[in-house]
Amino acid sequence: MNTRQEVLDFVKNGHTRFLPHLSIDCVIFGYHAHQLKILLIRHHGHEKWSLPGGYIARDETLTQAAHRILAEKTQITDLFLQQFYVFGDSVVRMSRIETQQTHNTTFAKVGVTLGDNHWLSERTLSIGYYALVDYLDVVVTPEFLVDGFCWLEIKEIPPLEYDHNEIIAKALATLRSQIYQQPIGYSLLPEKFTLPEIHALYETILGKQFDRRNFRKKLLTLGLIRQLDEQKRIGPHRSPFLYEFDLENYRKALEEGSVLAF
Amino acid sequence: MNTRQEVLDFVKNGHTRFLPHLSIDCVIFGYHAHQLKILLIRHHGHEKWSLPGGYIARDETLTQAAHRILAEKTQITDLFLQQFYVFGDSVVRMSRIETQQTHNTTFAKVGVTLGDNHWLSERTLSIGYYALVDYLDVVVTPEFLVDGFCWLEIKEIPPLEYDHNEIIAKALATLRSQIYQQPIGYSLLPEKFTLPEIHALYETILGKQFDRRNFRKKLLTLGLIRQLDEQKRIGPHRSPFLYEFDLENYRKALEEGSVLAF
Repeated sequence: MNTRQEVLDFVKNGHTRFLPHLSIDCVIFGYHAHQLKILLIRHHGHEKWSLPGGYIARDETLTQAAHRILAEKTQITDLFLQQFYVFGDSVVRMSRIETQQTHNTTFAKVGVTLGDNHWLSERTLSIGYYALVDYLDVVVTPEFLVDGFCWLEIKEIPPLEYDHNEIIAKALATLRSQIYQQPIGYSLLPEKFTLPEIHALYETILGKQFDRRNFRKKLLTLGLIRQLDEQKRIGPHRSPFLYEFDLENYRKALEEGSVLAF
Repeated sequence: MNTRQEVLDFVKNGHTRFLPHLSIDCVIFGYHAHQLKILLIRHHGHEKWSLPGGYIARDETLTQAAHRILAEKTQITDLFLQQFYVFGDSVVRMSRIETQQTHNTTFAKVGVTLGDNHWLSERTLSIGYYALVDYLDVVVTPEFLVDGFCWLEIKEIPPLEYDHNEIIAKALATLRSQIYQQPIGYSLLPEKFTLPEIHALYETILGKQFDRRNFRKKLLTLGLIRQLDEQKRIGPHRSPFLYEFDLENYRKALEEGSVLAF
């Protein structure tokens, strides 16, 4: 929604186009050089940040909805969004009051107040989707009702709207758990990378340190990376070997899963 | 719903008590001695089997809903139900026609036909929950609208109602993936068990064979099981050692996750 008229139309006629009671929230993890961040937006009139989210149209699939919502809120497209959980247990997911109040703060921008029986005032469960990108590759353009956006490091995230801190915690746990079974890094590292670079990627996402030599052995044993006959010049006494992904094995591991323990 | 009157009341007033557009389906895996089965039910008037499922009440959490639905359909209580996915992409999840027709077949038992605008005729997304039990420990008592139930081995499952085959496939993939990160077996094996017994449990659930000695080493290294100074008498020349779970490590691994690669 990028004009006042579109917002007014959404409030008035949205119930004919969207399913009530159900929203989607997107956790976009952004990695770059030892830092893992999350994309947050701030809706008009709000002090708290929140995740980009929205409603599911009656005539689109759940997957289509997730991509459209992210594109509408941020103009980000073509991400590999993965569904990870439905949030329907917390107090805020049981009650309509916070939902209604939060919406009313936002819609004040167009001079609208929702009634108690409005479809946007209802109890709303939310389906979480996540993606992992290099945040330098992503251009964010917030929509009309969004006043700003930011990439925040995980440990710096303040209390957010609704249960969005809980959604992020669950997304992070899922990402960390996935990392043991699906390779990552193809779009997050240069085509040729050093062992310290891929090691830092894994350590940053897992939020813990582990032995580099054992890690290298595991990746090589699984056939996910191969060492090149080429070194990177970092300094007079530092020229680590370069590696590249074995794309065939990488894709196979993505499809079939491969278990990485370290 | 266990009487005709309850069903009539559900059809007439259900929209005031339940959220529309959203159901829960339960995949109950039953393991016993080398066999992995799934609990299926058959609604009145239907040829196809389906998973036990139902709707979410407006005043209950998602977790409460999952437990209540399973209890209502089968009388099974106290299971560790885990949410695993929301199904909202397939043709049957996009259209209202199959939903309406399927309901009408069932409700014919009480002489009711749903109109096009009835809340039960709407497009319905479904949230999947799964649990893993010893099927000999479970007593199933189907409700009024359910004509029968069965435990079927995974490879014997025929085409089911809606997208329930797809839901089972996803549940099985999730269970198999979980098994690498969370211990299983505590409620599925005797208190003292042999290595072949726990090995068969893992092989059956993963649907593949793997080396028993390496498997033993992994479980011992993780501290999940310990060997007892006691043997099981199977025959004159067969008396394998008994093992038991280290419950402290087992619970810790359940909470923190532990990575098992074999």
